[in-house]
Parts: sequence; structure tokens; C-alpha cells
Amino acid sequence: MCIFCKIIKGEIPSKKLYEDDDVLAILDISQATKGHTLIMPKKHYENLLEIPSDELRRVMIVAQMVAKKINEVYKPAGINLLNNCGEVAGQSVMHFHTHIIPRYTSSDLKLGFENHMDQYDLDEIQKELKL
Amino acid sequence: MCIFCKIIKGEIPSKKLYEDDDVLAILDISQATKGHTLIMPKKHYENLLEIPSDELRRVMIVAQMVAKKINEVYKPAGINLLNNCGEVAGQSVMHFHTHIIPRYTSSDLKLGFENHMDQYDLDEIQKELKL
Repeated sequence: MCIFCKIIKGEIPSKKLYEDDDVLAILDISQATKGHTLIMPKKHYENLLEIPSDELRRVMIVAQMVAKKINEVYKPAGINLLNNCGEVAGQSVMHFHTHIIPRYTSSDLKLGFENHMDQYDLDEIQKELKL
Repeated sequence: MCIFCKIIKGEIPSKKLYEDDDVLAILDISQATKGHTLIMPKKHYENLLEIPSDELRRVMIVAQMVAKKINEVYKPAGINLLNNCGEVAGQSVMHFHTHIIPRYTSSDLKLGFENHMDQYDLDEIQKELKL
């Protein structure tokens, strides 16, 4: 059974920062940086593609509240809000959650994009993805 | 003046995937991976700490729509949803935006956490951050 569902049911201990009927915020046990927090819906949805939009909305509102609190208390230089959808993207627990990672230096998290602009035809991608 | 505000006003060209009264989705010109997209509110808010929660909600609902479309068309192995708040966190344009980065392999984006659990007292952090 899902480890986050067990945490939500209280069967596994966690460090809760916020809880309401629908959403739970807990400290990430790995503390990638000080204050690293996970926000999740109490109902089990696997990932960003599965969570209903009204639940996503609730999770994101709580994520912003927690980000503001972290900003107030620890005054980090920056914050990353990150959702990993799928194992390849770094998702390790298959229950939707978003990470809030306070940033104290630009090197405390490995996070880098490479520019691949020359490899793709933006017009073609636009045609394929336009909603 | 803000480059995203210029894009929203049509003063700078962009590859639009979706647009409504409040939200714009455009291809990120750097294409960290194929389909890399930015979702932003049309009104200018600097970052996650400044954007009103109802605008954040709108942006996130569009982000999920775009993620589903990318998933349908390109069938990536995973997706990352990322917001960088502050220059230290990787924010380069100071107009709130969230990245959608399709993942085709686990190595196509540099994204890594280190476990710093042993460096911090989770009970103390919980006390400091509890809402």
C-alpha cells in the first residue's frame, strides 16, 4: 500500500506543517535543503495527469501558503516548487505531491536546463501541441 | 520593461499553445526538452510569493491541461512541473511562470536532490514552520 496514504492515515509518523480535510503538508524526510516540504492531496491520485483539477487547485493554494511561511521564517534567497510526474522525472512515491524546496545558495540543488533550441522546429511543435 | 509583458502584449513574437483572458502558455525558446512550455498569468506578478492565489489557481489548471496535451501527443516517459522563485532558484524573467518539461529519459534534465536528513532537527523545523 502507498506510503503517503499510510502517513495520511497516521499509520506512519510524519512531521506535519499543515492539514485540512483535503490536503496535507509534511517535511520531506530527506531535507534536500532546510525546510524542504511535500504537499499532497489526502485522496490517492498517482500523478499530475490523474489528479482532478479542483484537488490540484487545493494543493497549490496550500503550497503557496507553505512557501510564504518558509520565506517568512527562514528568509531563503529563493524557492523551487517542483512536481515530478513519473519515475523518469524523479517521482519516487506514486501519490501526487509537490515539493517546496527553499534555496539558500544557487548550488544547494542540482537543477539545470540545457538550451536545445537548435534541435527543434518550434513552429512544428506549436502545431502539434496547440490547445 | 518585462519581456513576458511584451510577449503578452504581442510586442515580441512567441509560439502560443494556449491563451485565455488571464493565462498564456508559450513554448520555451530554449526547449530544455521537446515540448518545454511556460505558463504565465497575463498580469505581472514577480513570483510565487506575489501572485494572488486565484491567479495561481488559473495558471496551474492551464499547466495541467498543457501537460495532458503534451502527454497525449509526445508520450514522454515523465513530466516535471517547475516554478523557480528568485534568481538563486533559477528564475530568469521576473514575471511568474511555471515550466512544464516533458522527460524522455532520466538524464535529459539535471535535477537532483541530496539527502541532508542528518544535518537538521525535523522537530525543530516543524515547530518553526507549522501553520
